[in-house]
Amino acid sequence: MSTTHERPHHVVVVGGGFGGLQAVRELRTLPVSITLIDRRSFHLFQPLVYQVATGMLGAGEIAAPLRTIFKQDANVRVLLGEVSGFDLERRRVQVERLPNGDPCHEVPYDTLIVAAGSCYSYFGHDDWRSVAPDVKSLESALVVRRRILTAFEAAEIEQDRERRTEWLTFVVVGAGPTGVELAGQIAEMAKRTLHEEFREVDTRRARVVIVELADRVLPGFPPPLSEKARRALERLGVETFVGHRVVDVDEDGVQVTSPDHAPEAIRARTVMWSAGVEASDLARALAEASGAGPDRGGRVPVGPDLTLRGHPEVVALGDMALVHDAQGRPQPLPGLAPVALQEGRYAARQVANRLHGSTTPPFRYRDKGSLATIGRAKAVADFHRVRLSGLPAWLAWLLVHLFYLIGMQNRLLVLTRWMFSYLTRSGGARLITGSEVSPAAHRPALTVPK
Amino acid sequence: MSTTHERPHHVVVVGGGFGGLQAVRELRTLPVSITLIDRRSFHLFQPLVYQVATGMLGAGEIAAPLRTIFKQDANVRVLLGEVSGFDLERRRVQVERLPNGDPCHEVPYDTLIVAAGSCYSYFGHDDWRSVAPDVKSLESALVVRRRILTAFEAAEIEQDRERRTEWLTFVVVGAGPTGVELAGQIAEMAKRTLHEEFREVDTRRARVVIVELADRVLPGFPPPLSEKARRALERLGVETFVGHRVVDVDEDGVQVTSPDHAPEAIRARTVMWSAGVEASDLARALAEASGAGPDRGGRVPVGPDLTLRGHPEVVALGDMALVHDAQGRPQPLPGLAPVALQEGRYAARQVANRLHGSTTPPFRYRDKGSLATIGRAKAVADFHRVRLSGLPAWLAWLLVHLFYLIGMQNRLLVLTRWMFSYLTRSGGARLITGSEVSPAAHRPALTVPK
Repeated sequence: MSTTHERPHHVVVVGGGFGGLQAVRELRTLPVSITLIDRRSFHLFQPLVYQVATGMLGAGEIAAPLRTIFKQDANVRVLLGEVSGFDLERRRVQVERLPNGDPCHEVPYDTLIVAAGSCYSYFGHDDWRSVAPDVKSLESALVVRRRILTAFEAAEIEQDRERRTEWLTFVVVGAGPTGVELAGQIAEMAKRTLHEEFREVDTRRARVVIVELADRVLPGFPPPLSEKARRALERLGVETFVGHRVVDVDEDGVQVTSPDHAPEAIRARTVMWSAGVEASDLARALAEASGAGPDRGGRVPVGPDLTLRGHPEVVALGDMALVHDAQGRPQPLPGLAPVALQEGRYAARQVANRLHGSTTPPFRYRDKGSLATIGRAKAVADFHRVRLSGLPAWLAWLLVHLFYLIGMQNRLLVLTRWMFSYLTRSGGARLITGSEVSPAAHRPALTVPK
Repeated sequence: MSTTHERPHHVVVVGGGFGGLQAVRELRTLPVSITLIDRRSFHLFQPLVYQVATGMLGAGEIAAPLRTIFKQDANVRVLLGEVSGFDLERRRVQVERLPNGDPCHEVPYDTLIVAAGSCYSYFGHDDWRSVAPDVKSLESALVVRRRILTAFEAAEIEQDRERRTEWLTFVVVGAGPTGVELAGQIAEMAKRTLHEEFREVDTRRARVVIVELADRVLPGFPPPLSEKARRALERLGVETFVGHRVVDVDEDGVQVTSPDHAPEAIRARTVMWSAGVEASDLARALAEASGAGPDRGGRVPVGPDLTLRGHPEVVALGDMALVHDAQGRPQPLPGLAPVALQEGRYAARQVANRLHGSTTPPFRYRDKGSLATIGRAKAVADFHRVRLSGLPAWLAWLLVHLFYLIGMQNRLLVLTRWMFSYLTRSGGARLITGSEVSPAAHRPALTVPK
């Protein structure tokens, strides 16, 4: 790979999620050259991944190739590969698993922006991952989709009443926005959409359970909205197990406990995961390269300007970074797209200011509110001054998501899917793919990409 | 599974492709009960699978769940599973690989319609399949997509000139409509779309080769249109190797020979297959169950009314059947969607007539013509009375494909993709999925679903 020594300033951005993408979008107008490194060829619109899992949307409709996004920016290069480490002294990023099979590349930088995000944590039980795939990557969402749809198919032909009930039981672990939206959409699909399509089984009898360790659903939202969300879920027939800890997950279902109740087994053939947040491994790599250690959540500590201690040329942001104030006190921010977006924009502004020799005031997060949808035409929204629920919140949710989706084509496609779903109550992309027939014992056989 | 003895007449249809789907669509209005069995949960619009391979369309946009198609038809049941055999004496179909893990079901029938289609044959070299995946199933098309897009990524960072050339060489085996359209779209993508997106490599230098055993491309079309198609391909830079036999395929590329030329090696990292047609294994099973043998192409022989000899209650149709006239002479028909559609409709009419005690005149195929597209706004069409090429043929191609696509939602989505592609020259769903990073040695590691 040609180096970029002759260029005035080379910014390497690791990660094409919300934070990294935003940083590159702001940087591209500056007199710098940029290399965006991601192990995936596309930006993924995370907030809608769960709709790929339910078959509401197609995988390609919520993703945009990074090269396409930046095709008109001659100073932006995209490198497909997996960042494996950092040499902060020599200012180099190590990249592995390159598409041509080269074992490793080193990419030099003048400024490094790392926005590698997070994944769901299984509380140290990585063996649960294959039984309860997460709703985070596209591949994993397609595995979840296959399992959900196959479970209904299995129930349709299952003669044993007990096993039929297990096939019709769906457990979602974690009641953040993704978990709540996923549980709501599965319930709605079972009650409204699939009901007409099956002949033997009454899909309306499907049991959807959501398990949450905190004492309410949507723990990041104000309590009144949590309460509204819980009621909306329960109207859809979703059972909410709040204040419950998952202590075991296997092919028979999940075991939950709570301080107030005896341990309970929920027998289910389909378990999905949207709980716990664990920073990308790159947070640890970065923290260790800088001589500091990561925090308990695996995040890399950064200062009020998002830079690494002793390395003003290195920025970490988004889910993988833990901001500290000038006094060194941690100032945790929620793991949401708006935080990453604002931090990405800030990081780019900082580069611009440095080029001009000026300084940048500390980063401040402007919390504009939160949104979650619970089924058709139902949602909760918290814009601080205004709290909405029901149809107005749902319309707000719709507009915000369409607005932040990348690319006019994807917006049109998603809007088309949603319109049809709203008008006809039939899902969009409910295909079982990945294996010719998905056998019952689908769990052990499948490996779920992390 | 409950049996259907109480019903007046039970028709089992095996296969939800063009033929089987059309049969069920016509049968559903009759006083019969119907069980449609497929190993896939969806009808796939085969003629556009190659556009999934190039990333023009998303997988879900050319497929429609069978249950959704028939949700309003209470007399139609869908069974997901793999038909493994027939008991023609007891009138039962054996189904394996059921979604709930049951080893086998037997489904009784009064009339059996088998429309299990065909797959590409590798001329007895099944080991070529993993090196040169076919463009037939959705899964395989997604493997092809990943390889095509990864090859460009690999070329972008490849420093070795020779290897870079290999990454930029794409070989399509088989110049039927699928092969021609695939080669045309890859060439166009390399020349027009990707060119802007890559910084190091000039994708316009990509070499696209199509190899065909017959002496012209589109051998099923009239020679003048073949000639037009060849010229259109060559204008796009596609090299056409007609009259060439593929004698070896491996990770270094393909070996071809022809009577007029010395054997030639085409070094390429990406090889795709759309050649040879082999009837479904069920053709052999059916032929053997009836006491006859399959023909050389593995097809089951049927009479002028598409029924199996000695079994007027068993119909076979589409690519897997070889129609014979009343004198027992084979009357081969092309392996095209219109043949299967007309045969499916005929099979349903035959059932209706039998219920009324009347007979059905022999099946006659009405050939309405053929269409193939070669890149943007270029196509050839042969409607017998009218032969078109260029823009009029392309518009005809567009309308016919949209019309036969199942479901208004899919039509709108595909039209949106095509409009954007036409207007912006940027592809639609060019995502590399399936593995986090596709390593260079992608071939041996991947297993391609058959």
